[in-house]
Amino acid sequence: MSDATDPSATGSIRTIDVIRKKRDGRELSRAEIEYLVRGYTAGEIPDYQVSAWLMAALLRGLNRTETAALTDAMLHSGQVLDLSEFPAAKIDKHSTGGVGDKTSLVLAAVAAAGGLVVPMISGRGLGHTGGTLDKLESIPGFQVGLSIARFREVLRACGCAMIGQTAEIAPADRLLYSLRDVTGTVESPYLICASIMSKKLAEGIGGLVLDVKTGSGAFMKTEEDAAFLAELMVETGERMGKKVVALITDMDQPLGLRVGNALEVEEVIDVLRGEGPEDLRELCRELAAWMFRLGGRSATIADAKKLSDEMIQSGRALEKFRQMVALQGGNASAIDDPKLLPRAKRALDVTSPRTGYVGAIQCEAVGTACVILGGGRAKKEDSVDPAVGIILHKKVGDRVSVGEPLCTILYKDETRAAHANQLLARSYQIADSPPAPGKLIRRIIPADAN
Amino acid sequence: MSDATDPSATGSIRTIDVIRKKRDGRELSRAEIEYLVRGYTAGEIPDYQVSAWLMAALLRGLNRTETAALTDAMLHSGQVLDLSEFPAAKIDKHSTGGVGDKTSLVLAAVAAAGGLVVPMISGRGLGHTGGTLDKLESIPGFQVGLSIARFREVLRACGCAMIGQTAEIAPADRLLYSLRDVTGTVESPYLICASIMSKKLAEGIGGLVLDVKTGSGAFMKTEEDAAFLAELMVETGERMGKKVVALITDMDQPLGLRVGNALEVEEVIDVLRGEGPEDLRELCRELAAWMFRLGGRSATIADAKKLSDEMIQSGRALEKFRQMVALQGGNASAIDDPKLLPRAKRALDVTSPRTGYVGAIQCEAVGTACVILGGGRAKKEDSVDPAVGIILHKKVGDRVSVGEPLCTILYKDETRAAHANQLLARSYQIADSPPAPGKLIRRIIPADAN
Repeated sequence: MSDATDPSATGSIRTIDVIRKKRDGRELSRAEIEYLVRGYTAGEIPDYQVSAWLMAALLRGLNRTETAALTDAMLHSGQVLDLSEFPAAKIDKHSTGGVGDKTSLVLAAVAAAGGLVVPMISGRGLGHTGGTLDKLESIPGFQVGLSIARFREVLRACGCAMIGQTAEIAPADRLLYSLRDVTGTVESPYLICASIMSKKLAEGIGGLVLDVKTGSGAFMKTEEDAAFLAELMVETGERMGKKVVALITDMDQPLGLRVGNALEVEEVIDVLRGEGPEDLRELCRELAAWMFRLGGRSATIADAKKLSDEMIQSGRALEKFRQMVALQGGNASAIDDPKLLPRAKRALDVTSPRTGYVGAIQCEAVGTACVILGGGRAKKEDSVDPAVGIILHKKVGDRVSVGEPLCTILYKDETRAAHANQLLARSYQIADSPPAPGKLIRRIIPADAN
Repeated sequence: MSDATDPSATGSIRTIDVIRKKRDGRELSRAEIEYLVRGYTAGEIPDYQVSAWLMAALLRGLNRTETAALTDAMLHSGQVLDLSEFPAAKIDKHSTGGVGDKTSLVLAAVAAAGGLVVPMISGRGLGHTGGTLDKLESIPGFQVGLSIARFREVLRACGCAMIGQTAEIAPADRLLYSLRDVTGTVESPYLICASIMSKKLAEGIGGLVLDVKTGSGAFMKTEEDAAFLAELMVETGERMGKKVVALITDMDQPLGLRVGNALEVEEVIDVLRGEGPEDLRELCRELAAWMFRLGGRSATIADAKKLSDEMIQSGRALEKFRQMVALQGGNASAIDDPKLLPRAKRALDVTSPRTGYVGAIQCEAVGTACVILGGGRAKKEDSVDPAVGIILHKKVGDRVSVGEPLCTILYKDETRAAHANQLLARSYQIADSPPAPGKLIRRIIPADAN
């Protein structure tokens, strides 16, 4: 019952007091939040004090001022890129993660083709969700671990570049995320917001389009939770002088028809060729339009959608993608000949037990099935097999006959395939009549965005 | 957002799941609680996971079953003393801590003189409160660091022994308390209950009298908080088959007239001689009576009080105290000649600024003044000066004239004395009329105890 043994008291702020203040539901000052982030990043405040604080922050919440201060402190824990050498608007896009969500690859190419600069720093798959870096690495030779200097060169050469988090960018976030991951403190909208926004704002961008997923395959299962997080991120970005818009979009079923790293790159190429599944094309078009709108490339969203369509129809987006792949060491021939991408040779159909309509797909289970096949990570240290995955033949609302394939599993290991088969069979719910059609884009925040 | 990197998953229970379950306000199973305590004590679960759990437990609370399971797991993290060699009832007493609270020293002697066995494992002063071990060590030569074997020998020889926590007894509590101290997770009634009860029940006792302090000098400032903790401890003890009673007692002003280690031993000797201040004598009599009642030495509380009086009037309690001091290496002559106890030579009176009545004494400030003089610990590592302290001349309700001494500071260092003087002067509130008299014993739990 003493403050005596605080190992990390420095100056006038003491760690124990910052923990207690949040524990008791009181508002922390900017100085207290900076003290905590700086001290932890410098290794002066031990893990066990920060994890207690994280749990208090999760359970007591942070208000908007505290959330912005935390984001700012994490952002400034490392280098903030200065991209002022590029006269064009710097706009990025971020998704909170889902199953079959490969829009980032399409968007970087479309936006850069349309005159924006897209300095995209992405993550890896974790849990049931896929990761942009894993998808890119399924292209033979593609390097995501570029230095900041090389990242700039690629941006200069083609207007978009896609890399992984580096030691220079928001080191506090990497430390905090690792700690949150093992202390049950991931699932806080405030901490999620600070984590995402600190990394993205360190990219030196002027605007950000957020794709906040909701549904059975998303981290935010309800639209309310997704909207809460979206509003938090939009406000935090605006407080920091950035243009931010968030789209709440459907993740009640996988996006597109392909789940698995190389399979998803194939689908990206389809979309860049003006083909591919309707839902994926529509979402890419919407997100690209918002990127153009925030970047001042179009006066209205309708115009921005036309610009996006033009970039695809003209082949300029596909050319941009090919160029980026080559600049980052990837085999650009694979873009024109997707057979050069890895693909597992063995295939197994999951068939419908009866005739009817697909009423629902338990989307997280589809993501988990892909992880089981080896296409994702059960543990952070796991390596990912780019060649395995799932091709969906039926999605929600589709008519299906008994014995007809619902999806096809591409696999290497029989036991894993059997396990994935079970999971996928259970994840499809077959109904007598088609369900009411769902909306792909549920909400746009702020509501007066245009 | 993955469970992947949990460093401490073993068997079917995973640390991360136990943290999340408590974070989400769900009830933990006995197995989950045992897993956590055992894993932490064995060094298998890292500090940072346990501190997140502690914060979740503090903010979400534990129910009675969980509190008992936590107590039990901590109790069994080490050795539980088997005192079955002693035919007499083994009864102990514990106080939640206050200012001038020296009852343990009186009670061990009175209870042992009356035929009970008192295997008392005590703590040191922390924060503004004094500690039994520090008081005992002010007797020249007194050893509190006995081995368990020597502890038994002293018990065998005189029926009472008073030592500090050893490595064998409830090691989980020592580890958890150190972590709570630096992570803002001390102030939880559930964790306080488990900490106190695990240590006390490891003593191999049959019954326990709890003195739960409330007021401006206690950790539980309100009677409601004190009663909540008391009920929790009584129920936890009863669930483990022990006889437990709790007295909620006043700590709105110091107990007795002396605060400071050697000064308090002097007052203990006064009480054992049938002298000393009325409030201290009354509380000792009440607590001793409950010890005799739980130990089956008296059929009623009235009889038990008579037995306590008899032990003092006959000199048997004083003789028991003298015997224990000698057995534990202390200079027993000091009991008969308190001038042999250390006492600071310099004295400073704190005088009343006006004529009136003492309306209130800010009790925590008196404890803090004693710490400032060197008589307590600001940090765990600090050593304690047994010779300094405060002698109160006026207590709440007493009439006082302008310029009359309220208390006297015994000190060694001028600067510290000046600081203590300021604090003490402010802690006395002088009113025009006497306040309504307060009750020393506020409540007895369970209410039907007899």
